[in-house]
Amino acid sequence: MAFSVTILGNSSAKPTPTAHPSAQVVNLNEQYYLLDAGEGVQQQLIRRGINPLRLRAVFISHLHGDHCFGLFPLISTLGLMGKRTPLDVYAPAPMGEILDYHLRYFDSELPYEVKWHEVRTTEHRIVMENNTLEVWSIPLRHRVPAAGYHFREKQPERNVDKFKIEKYGLKIAQIVAAKRGEDITLESGEVVPNDELTYIPYKARSYAYLSDTAYSAKAAERVAGVDLLYHETTYSAADEQWAGGRGHSTTTEAAKAATKAGAKRLIIGHFSSRYKDFEALRDECREIFPNTDVAAEGETFIIEEER
Amino acid sequence: MAFSVTILGNSSAKPTPTAHPSAQVVNLNEQYYLLDAGEGVQQQLIRRGINPLRLRAVFISHLHGDHCFGLFPLISTLGLMGKRTPLDVYAPAPMGEILDYHLRYFDSELPYEVKWHEVRTTEHRIVMENNTLEVWSIPLRHRVPAAGYHFREKQPERNVDKFKIEKYGLKIAQIVAAKRGEDITLESGEVVPNDELTYIPYKARSYAYLSDTAYSAKAAERVAGVDLLYHETTYSAADEQWAGGRGHSTTTEAAKAATKAGAKRLIIGHFSSRYKDFEALRDECREIFPNTDVAAEGETFIIEEER
Repeated sequence: MAFSVTILGNSSAKPTPTAHPSAQVVNLNEQYYLLDAGEGVQQQLIRRGINPLRLRAVFISHLHGDHCFGLFPLISTLGLMGKRTPLDVYAPAPMGEILDYHLRYFDSELPYEVKWHEVRTTEHRIVMENNTLEVWSIPLRHRVPAAGYHFREKQPERNVDKFKIEKYGLKIAQIVAAKRGEDITLESGEVVPNDELTYIPYKARSYAYLSDTAYSAKAAERVAGVDLLYHETTYSAADEQWAGGRGHSTTTEAAKAATKAGAKRLIIGHFSSRYKDFEALRDECREIFPNTDVAAEGETFIIEEER
Repeated sequence: MAFSVTILGNSSAKPTPTAHPSAQVVNLNEQYYLLDAGEGVQQQLIRRGINPLRLRAVFISHLHGDHCFGLFPLISTLGLMGKRTPLDVYAPAPMGEILDYHLRYFDSELPYEVKWHEVRTTEHRIVMENNTLEVWSIPLRHRVPAAGYHFREKQPERNVDKFKIEKYGLKIAQIVAAKRGEDITLESGEVVPNDELTYIPYKARSYAYLSDTAYSAKAAERVAGVDLLYHETTYSAADEQWAGGRGHSTTTEAAKAATKAGAKRLIIGHFSSRYKDFEALRDECREIFPNTDVAAEGETFIIEEER
């Protein structure tokens, strides 16, 4: 089952001629979720071949413009495109008020509903759930209320070993019961334990998006064991004096967070416009956390299935 | 004195992978004026080497998102850039309320003032004036209240012919008086008429921006004699049935407006996303108004000085 993250934008607030502000798309089993929506996100989606109508929901980390100014044009365009199903927007307050005024002044006749779901940035809890996915809010340390998002794939259904189906002559009803995790009683009265009949096709995977934030050990602990971690890295280690006070992190702190979380892989972004050499920032992280890469605009990071 | 128009964006509402929505910069004597502000305008400015801090004022034609969603991120960025002088925004109501909301939620601590000036879209009048320029509002015919803008350079000061200064031995005070247009009385009592002493260095120039609008003979008359006319051309002549009812124009109507205005040159844009071949649209205009060009993104159109 597909599980990937595509980087649409990655720069911090000050615009550059080429880079776009924060926005990513998570694809889980061809269901698309937008993470932050910096200016230009609708065009970035189209450039990456992602039809905006495919978005299931939008998650906004905080109400700084470089993380949400692209949401409003996207809402209008989805109307032009004839969207009919609701758009779920998960964001801190007062996004509800902001959406109300946007709709009043610009989209009073939208053909679909925009549903705001308040994300309480002090709470670590499930904010969205469906058959395949839980999305948890992760309290962050920024200048304004901010939440990270932890995408946790649900444990896939157990598969029944086809050799065992033959061996024990299982019937459909028994196969279905085994998939549910039940032990199976054969006609002989013999009981076959479920774990002999079934196996987990692959381990449930996870992705965490932590931006914008100063270093937070607590946030790292809350995404323990994450497969792929995006951690903001606004500053180099040398510019540490700027980071914490502004609610941002350095390369060293991002790597520290990945280590503390026991993440399998780290990707970094939200670089200050003062930096041109992102590889140098990546290398600072690699000294502490070797499996680090730049979350480069346009790149797709795939989270592979593992037995 | 420089007088030019640079096209930052030119597409209609539906986004494409490459084109940007409506935005232009008028440069008159190195003073920059933004005409409409579609999404991404701040990045488009930087791409064209125009420092957003140089903008003297912003003129918004109407409150559809593809003409103003870029204004709000621009306002935020100007704050980050440390702007101190006011930003004048000329736009129809209720832009004032919209700006209030924006400032309350996103820019409550802006280091400069955003000054909204209401443009009454039913009135043909001067909305802005300074030493070199008058900007007139031109009522348009769109689905919402919309105004075009007519940039009229003021008649440059008369120059005094240096040969006549020698011939009549004019003193500084007399030269200054002659520049003001006065006749000069020599010591002999002889009066030299001003037009023998002075000449107009070049004719005052003008630019008109008419978007979005259905064909309007009245608007064309109001920009009579314009040097450069931008007229929206959302549809081809063949798709005429879509144009008027939606408050838009065809190629034929844009060319008709340029002819009626006696414009020297026509540039067209705001093409529907259904068209890929802009040259074909241009050629439709050229059948009626030969001096037509596509207002291509990134192009700068210079209005030359003429004696």
